[in-house]
Amino acid sequence: MTDQKSLQDFLKNNGLDAMLLSSVGNISWMTSYFGFSHIERDAFALVTKKNKYVFTHTLYSNEVKDQVKNCIVIEYTAQKPFATSLAEIVGKEKIVNIGFENNDITVEEYLKLTTAITSHFIAKDFSGIRIQKSKSEIDNIKRACLIGDKAYQHLKKFLMPGITELGLAWEIEKFVRESGGELSFPTIVAFGKNSAIPHHHTGDQTLMSNDIILLDFGVKIDGYCSDISRTIFIGKPTKEQEKVYEIVKQAQQEAINYLHNELGGKNNDSVKASDVDTIARDFIIKKGYPSIPHSLGHGIGLDVHEAPRISPNSHNFLAEGMVFSIEPGIYIANKFGVRIEDLYAIRGHKLIQLTNAS
Amino acid sequence: MTDQKSLQDFLKNNGLDAMLLSSVGNISWMTSYFGFSHIERDAFALVTKKNKYVFTHTLYSNEVKDQVKNCIVIEYTAQKPFATSLAEIVGKEKIVNIGFENNDITVEEYLKLTTAITSHFIAKDFSGIRIQKSKSEIDNIKRACLIGDKAYQHLKKFLMPGITELGLAWEIEKFVRESGGELSFPTIVAFGKNSAIPHHHTGDQTLMSNDIILLDFGVKIDGYCSDISRTIFIGKPTKEQEKVYEIVKQAQQEAINYLHNELGGKNNDSVKASDVDTIARDFIIKKGYPSIPHSLGHGIGLDVHEAPRISPNSHNFLAEGMVFSIEPGIYIANKFGVRIEDLYAIRGHKLIQLTNAS
Repeated sequence: MTDQKSLQDFLKNNGLDAMLLSSVGNISWMTSYFGFSHIERDAFALVTKKNKYVFTHTLYSNEVKDQVKNCIVIEYTAQKPFATSLAEIVGKEKIVNIGFENNDITVEEYLKLTTAITSHFIAKDFSGIRIQKSKSEIDNIKRACLIGDKAYQHLKKFLMPGITELGLAWEIEKFVRESGGELSFPTIVAFGKNSAIPHHHTGDQTLMSNDIILLDFGVKIDGYCSDISRTIFIGKPTKEQEKVYEIVKQAQQEAINYLHNELGGKNNDSVKASDVDTIARDFIIKKGYPSIPHSLGHGIGLDVHEAPRISPNSHNFLAEGMVFSIEPGIYIANKFGVRIEDLYAIRGHKLIQLTNAS
Repeated sequence: MTDQKSLQDFLKNNGLDAMLLSSVGNISWMTSYFGFSHIERDAFALVTKKNKYVFTHTLYSNEVKDQVKNCIVIEYTAQKPFATSLAEIVGKEKIVNIGFENNDITVEEYLKLTTAITSHFIAKDFSGIRIQKSKSEIDNIKRACLIGDKAYQHLKKFLMPGITELGLAWEIEKFVRESGGELSFPTIVAFGKNSAIPHHHTGDQTLMSNDIILLDFGVKIDGYCSDISRTIFIGKPTKEQEKVYEIVKQAQQEAINYLHNELGGKNNDSVKASDVDTIARDFIIKKGYPSIPHSLGHGIGLDVHEAPRISPNSHNFLAEGMVFSIEPGIYIANKFGVRIEDLYAIRGHKLIQLTNAS
């Protein structure tokens, strides 16, 4: 999914001779190969002014060579570690300034690299390189969202008193897997009081009649992720629950309206992400409820959380090709919580909703 | 599962006032809480001469406070980040030397910590703190192995021409999940030629009659992992396949016999891991086949790969309480591969086999 020109522009604009990619999201984006582990370090990638390289252990190199045609594949071993191979290319291509992902490279790796290689290693934020998605990337995210919507329809069959949180999460996962996808993160299912915990750890709690359910799950297909949250009432909600639900729904709508107007009306190229956060956050506070204990939203793509961030401290601007969640929530400790989350893309100066489960 | 004395001994023996744990495996081990993400940084932990702390985001802190009773829980937020909370404790407890996991802490995190805190941060290998397992830890791993053995029995039902690698992997996963476990890593199912790739990425290949199948999967239950590999012939193996299988089986047996004799016969406290690797590796080479392209084995516990390493370069010694795999393999490019992997524990100077699927 890479665009050679944008990578070369990134090098030029940042005064770099090369960029070293280490996060799996960035390597997947560059190679369109999705087999590397998120837990262990299986690979690195390097973009220079002349070439693109992917480095991986001999255990994986045959498969990578078969599947990655847009990069030179270099294998490393215990005898010839990654830093040695990198040093050879640095020498051959006379690389002086190498940008690296300082939020991903460990202190140990940094020391090995700087011991083997005398170039300047410069900490860089690479999140910009894939923040604006192509049409085909957005189509992939849409496909993930569609499976999520169908999973939501499917799970309604299981909303009967007695099912456990883990049981319901498993029904969602089975549906997603049998639809050709996988989960993009561990499903959150929170029954009753557990919904007051924004990121509840799904457990053995059983569903009661007249319970509230907070669901947050995502699908991944061909590397691309979706993410959706819904709050469901079994039976009749209390007056307070109804009120809180309407406020959260309205807070989401306020943020959407703001974005919509800014993008369309004034024909702006971009909208400050922190302003969007403020719209929804202040709406909830003005109604007398606590501020959202998390960001209003986050970018999504090959990673379930990536740039842009939509939070009070975000420096991002929302612009063409970006895909992100808008997910306000109100959590009342030891009682209940409500979160509503949908994904949106900006295409042709318009906000397009990608998740549609109702 | 922590032992307060061993942590204090570690501090003392390493001249440390505190140790900062950041890897999820180490934090899980210290807290017996298994809810933290392996993908994003959800928590840190600190062991001082006086106290044990766990630091987590406010999103998780209520749940952590409920479940973690052996640590002081400190919550961090965007406004009061982790480094600020850590600085307060460092001041209060007059901490000078802090050991940290240099193979886990990123360059960005290191800079934030060393900017906020003037103590000495000392790179340390913490893998020793949980290398020797207690009886209850080994019992947990045994439970995971038992579900794995049952899953192996179960999957035999599906070994019919036409099933895909992903289809078979999914049947294994469903069985494991419905038995109360989860997978400890993505299952490797390799049919035919794919078995020649040691860590094949399970795909759409369909099973043929007279095919060879390489399976490598693991179970995780209550945080503890299992890992097993088997090679299966559908129909009659070729003469070459039969020969290779016998050599791999024998290589595993040679390593086991060596360990058994060293531990029992001479009543040694420990056996050099690299010697065990050599026994199996040289056996295969002497038979005229290529050296194993991976380590002979690895420790296992809360992580599927942890100390000790059983490889040519390992500095570890195998001793009481350690749990590890022995997994020789022969891979003949573009033809087929054979790997046989079992888990073993050392208890009371004896080698105990934990995986038993046949």
